[in-house]
Amino acid sequence: MIKIIVDCFGGDHCPEAPVEGALASLAKNPDLSVILTGDESILRKCLEGKTYDASRLEIVDAPEVIGCDEKPTDVVRLKRNSSMMKGIIMLRDRDDIAAMVSTGSTGALVTGALVRLGRIPGVIRPAFCPLLPTMDGGIVGVCDSGANVEVTSAHLRQFAIMASLYLENVYGVKSPRVALLNVGKEAEKGDDMRRDAYRLLSETPSVNFVGNMESRDLLSGRYDVVVADGFSGNVLVKTTEGTALELLKKLKKDIFSRWIYKLGALLMSRMFKDMKAFMNYQNYGGSVLLGTSKVVVKGHGSSKAVAVEKCIEQAYRMEVSRLSGQIETEIGKYEHYEE
Amino acid sequence: MIKIIVDCFGGDHCPEAPVEGALASLAKNPDLSVILTGDESILRKCLEGKTYDASRLEIVDAPEVIGCDEKPTDVVRLKRNSSMMKGIIMLRDRDDIAAMVSTGSTGALVTGALVRLGRIPGVIRPAFCPLLPTMDGGIVGVCDSGANVEVTSAHLRQFAIMASLYLENVYGVKSPRVALLNVGKEAEKGDDMRRDAYRLLSETPSVNFVGNMESRDLLSGRYDVVVADGFSGNVLVKTTEGTALELLKKLKKDIFSRWIYKLGALLMSRMFKDMKAFMNYQNYGGSVLLGTSKVVVKGHGSSKAVAVEKCIEQAYRMEVSRLSGQIETEIGKYEHYEE
Repeated sequence: MIKIIVDCFGGDHCPEAPVEGALASLAKNPDLSVILTGDESILRKCLEGKTYDASRLEIVDAPEVIGCDEKPTDVVRLKRNSSMMKGIIMLRDRDDIAAMVSTGSTGALVTGALVRLGRIPGVIRPAFCPLLPTMDGGIVGVCDSGANVEVTSAHLRQFAIMASLYLENVYGVKSPRVALLNVGKEAEKGDDMRRDAYRLLSETPSVNFVGNMESRDLLSGRYDVVVADGFSGNVLVKTTEGTALELLKKLKKDIFSRWIYKLGALLMSRMFKDMKAFMNYQNYGGSVLLGTSKVVVKGHGSSKAVAVEKCIEQAYRMEVSRLSGQIETEIGKYEHYEE
Repeated sequence: MIKIIVDCFGGDHCPEAPVEGALASLAKNPDLSVILTGDESILRKCLEGKTYDASRLEIVDAPEVIGCDEKPTDVVRLKRNSSMMKGIIMLRDRDDIAAMVSTGSTGALVTGALVRLGRIPGVIRPAFCPLLPTMDGGIVGVCDSGANVEVTSAHLRQFAIMASLYLENVYGVKSPRVALLNVGKEAEKGDDMRRDAYRLLSETPSVNFVGNMESRDLLSGRYDVVVADGFSGNVLVKTTEGTALELLKKLKKDIFSRWIYKLGALLMSRMFKDMKAFMNYQNYGGSVLLGTSKVVVKGHGSSKAVAVEKCIEQAYRMEVSRLSGQIETEIGKYEHYEE
């Protein structure tokens, strides 16, 4: 039995989306059990009239609410009875729990995971690794996408190792092609840190390093993993999502501007529907936090039930593939850098 | 008469695209004259049979060729007879020349401009400011997009001042809304440099600072200028271009997968054509280098004649609006930081 905590308060569609996502996952995976954290009375009401295997669902009361503007460090220190912090502490303390899924504040989740949960031995910094769909039907992981705004080349090497293992073990990508995000393809591009990272990655047998990648090639399908500092990785992921969404919006607006376009779009409705699904990040799960001692998956704040379900599935697969142990082994092969 | 140098060797469509772009500009602007740099015999052949006002066109022989893999510093030092370096040196030495347009190597152009041309008094670092189309039909400038991979908050303040003046004077945007590229909206987001830049920008009356911008909002139309370090600014611009291009490619491929889609697309052909034009960076001119003592505009390496023409038009308008003098005045109002 694999037990996963679902933080039911924090996202835009709470608690309905996390609760429904959890129930859908329970129905699909007979060896999954979930712990819902949050205000118990609200959660009980939300579960009323729904069918599920009650022996695999637990509710842990955590009624404190995290405000939008609260500092992550304050949340970690002062909001121990919030759905997120109570979840993280339980994840740390209970051996029977494997993972946690949350759609709450990214900053609080990262800080909480670092301070309360700790890292896999040898890992300097945990890092986010969201997945994006590529134009050839594959996926590409970006690591880090925002957990660490400042990094060293040693961090980037670890991100490359962790993300490679993630793509290989959880998504079956054989020997993932790893690129370094840079402003040009040549080895000497970028700042000193980037040049040093290029060298380090080239010298790391655990990583199938294929060189620098310019950001315009992210969706080309030529890369499986892109490593970056959390600042530019964040820009890379959010710009891709933002541009796709804005273009879809424009397409829709243009179509509705003339009846002949509407007619044309009617003939193409199936295609547009597929395209929308293809570009919908909700279908690609959450952003896993690689390197924490137990599995943490961060769903988008706007996640609906289907997105939360994907996040739970990711957490489940990470646990089944024993990713943490593999990360520890592989990271251990290289000299340890001081933080 | 405004005289502009057009570097005719360096881009993918050389020398035809620069030559044709220059001739088109000449035809449109009676007070423009151009100097074409490059291999004179090839340029003469390229001009054969074409109609233009020969009194406003000069050819300067510069037959040396810059290789793809040459280091920018080597180009500046050793290739003084290349079309680009000869152009930069002439721009520096001749008072009658106002500007230069090039579609050649970005690195060589930046280095050449810095070393040979110099900066507007008070400017610490020149920076690129390409323009992107926003979804409400406007434009947004990103400064810097790659000239400086490492920056300080003082640089970012200058980028904000220069880009604001550029948008206001050359494109008529009144009191441009300036944002700082960051990983979140709150003032305390990002690293120390970003937090310091936030504070500095808030305290700069010459800049209409509206706060941090997350990269997903670039095309929203809510910002006129986005300031960023050259690394993440480069990621921002290239990811936007890359995502738009990949999605257009996918749209085309999907349309051709079924006859009913092809029929639908036929009804929408005008719309798709407009959309393609809207997303085509060739229609938005080049990336101007702000802060050099004379105007330098960098066109995309893949520029066709129409894109080169746009670049010449930008250089022309920058000169007419006396942007350099305004930058000097405005930058001079703030304490001078050491580089």
